[in-house]
Amino acid sequence: MLSEYRHTRRVQFYETDAAGIVHFSWYFRYMEEAEHALWRAAGLSIAPPNAEIAWPRVSATCDFHRPLRFEQEFDVWLRIAEMTTRTIRYACVLTAADTQIATGSLTVACALKLPNRPMKATDIPPDVAARFEVSAGARS
Amino acid sequence: MLSEYRHTRRVQFYETDAAGIVHFSWYFRYMEEAEHALWRAAGLSIAPPNAEIAWPRVSATCDFHRPLRFEQEFDVWLRIAEMTTRTIRYACVLTAADTQIATGSLTVACALKLPNRPMKATDIPPDVAARFEVSAGARS
Amino acid sequence: MLSEYRHTRRVQFYETDAAGIVHFSWYFRYMEEAEHALWRAAGLSIAPPNAEIAWPRVSATCDFHRPLRFEQEFDVWLRIAEMTTRTIRYACVLTAADTQIATGSLTVACALKLPNRPMKATDIPPDVAARFEVSAGARS
Amino acid sequence: MLSEYRHTRRVQFYETDAAGIVHFSWYFRYMEEAEHALWRAAGLSIAPPNAEIAWPRVSATCDFHRPLRFEQEFDVWLRIAEMTTRTIRYACVLTAADTQIATGSLTVACALKLPNRPMKATDIPPDVAARFEVSAGARS
Repeated sequence: MLSEYRHTRRVQFYETDAAGIVHFSWYFRYMEEAEHALWRAAGLSIAPPNAEIAWPRVSATCDFHRPLRFEQEFDVWLRIAEMTTRTIRYACVLTAADTQIATGSLTVACALKLPNRPMKATDIPPDVAARFEVSAGARS
Repeated sequence: MLSEYRHTRRVQFYETDAAGIVHFSWYFRYMEEAEHALWRAAGLSIAPPNAEIAWPRVSATCDFHRPLRFEQEFDVWLRIAEMTTRTIRYACVLTAADTQIATGSLTVACALKLPNRPMKATDIPPDVAARFEVSAGARS
Repeated sequence: MLSEYRHTRRVQFYETDAAGIVHFSWYFRYMEEAEHALWRAAGLSIAPPNAEIAWPRVSATCDFHRPLRFEQEFDVWLRIAEMTTRTIRYACVLTAADTQIATGSLTVACALKLPNRPMKATDIPPDVAARFEVSAGARS
Repeated sequence: MLSEYRHTRRVQFYETDAAGIVHFSWYFRYMEEAEHALWRAAGLSIAPPNAEIAWPRVSATCDFHRPLRFEQEFDVWLRIAEMTTRTIRYACVLTAADTQIATGSLTVACALKLPNRPMKATDIPPDVAARFEVSAGARS
């Protein structure tokens, strides 16, 4: 069972903006990249072909402490902060060379995909729930 | 003095993802678009050429209630929820045909740009502060 | 029958990069935006819900003449340069205040969507072909 | 002296669109990623802090042969197809498991950055020119 993942990344040029730093919208994509890498590490895909369930995002937050610049390497530390029967909340810290860049969270829900109708909340399937557990603590 | 702005938008194809809906990272860009449109409505640019100050994002949050799909029209209602001597906090509601799509917030800080050094927090210039005021209330 | 469209646009901050100008990848998105606006002007959607056909991109080119900067307004002039039974080629010129910014082209093909199989080239449906015609000439 | 680079990549969810495949604009970003990785492999950065020169894109083309899907792994094979005193043209092939996904090209120019004025074409600096050479041939 997995509860944490460290995703290492380098800033791409198209992620920067005219202020010379990574545009803040990218931090949310970095968090999601780490989530999907955690799932792969657990032997799963969050969106396999013809999946009957999906994982829509319910809420996302980020506090931006330091900028990131072109070609800078950084880590996205993701951990499972909370699991309910239908949702997962991830807590996230971005660091670069031991400096804290940002902290954030991402809450996702398990949902049934229904043709031509809105998705409907459903329980996390047992084979998914069995792979993940809440992290014992924040990264020390 | 302005305190609110309504930004109308249509979903572009490149904003959708393989789930068939707008990727959640775009909601943060929609909020920022509305912020910049509010500034233009106030006769200002948030990033004029050779500016000595910048407006880095300090924190951002979003709760996602309903999906948006390709070509859907929607509104981004932005209002100034709080102003301090050095920061502005915007509250934001996305709606489409009277349905609430998402609610979010964006806090930005006023900062001095210094060559080859990190930006430094500074007071909001009087000519900017004079154009904005805190909104009397949420959109009714 | 339509053969041309003028799409007006303003540069968003997230479209700029650390060089202070619009990242070149955005020009291709601008062209596609204009294509979809042309289709809407013709009373069509290029990707309606539950469509049985799709319009994959076959090739794209762009020559970049001048940069675009934050908040700059510009026009995307799109015209249908060629139509075959299965493809449409658009020619595109981006201009800002009478300055040519870029020229490009986009070729798209009509394709059948097949469940769990690659898309398959097919003829453009008559109700689509009836709305478009090749432009008489370049923008004068 | 380097003339080729193989950049390996996995499709991220935010790179897909509502057609279930990678949006075509991303292929241009993939090519640029490979270019910057080639420069790093040559001991260079294409955009170091306080650089006096920049490398604006002059033209870009891409032919799209097969789609890419979420989490698919692929390679971007970049080679230097042509060098003049002021420009570099890269040729590019994207492959996934020996299937050709796309072929493209990217031409960039060396330019002097001038404060508050347009960039001006200039010769490629000797320390850059010394690191690269035209590739002997296409990838066999």
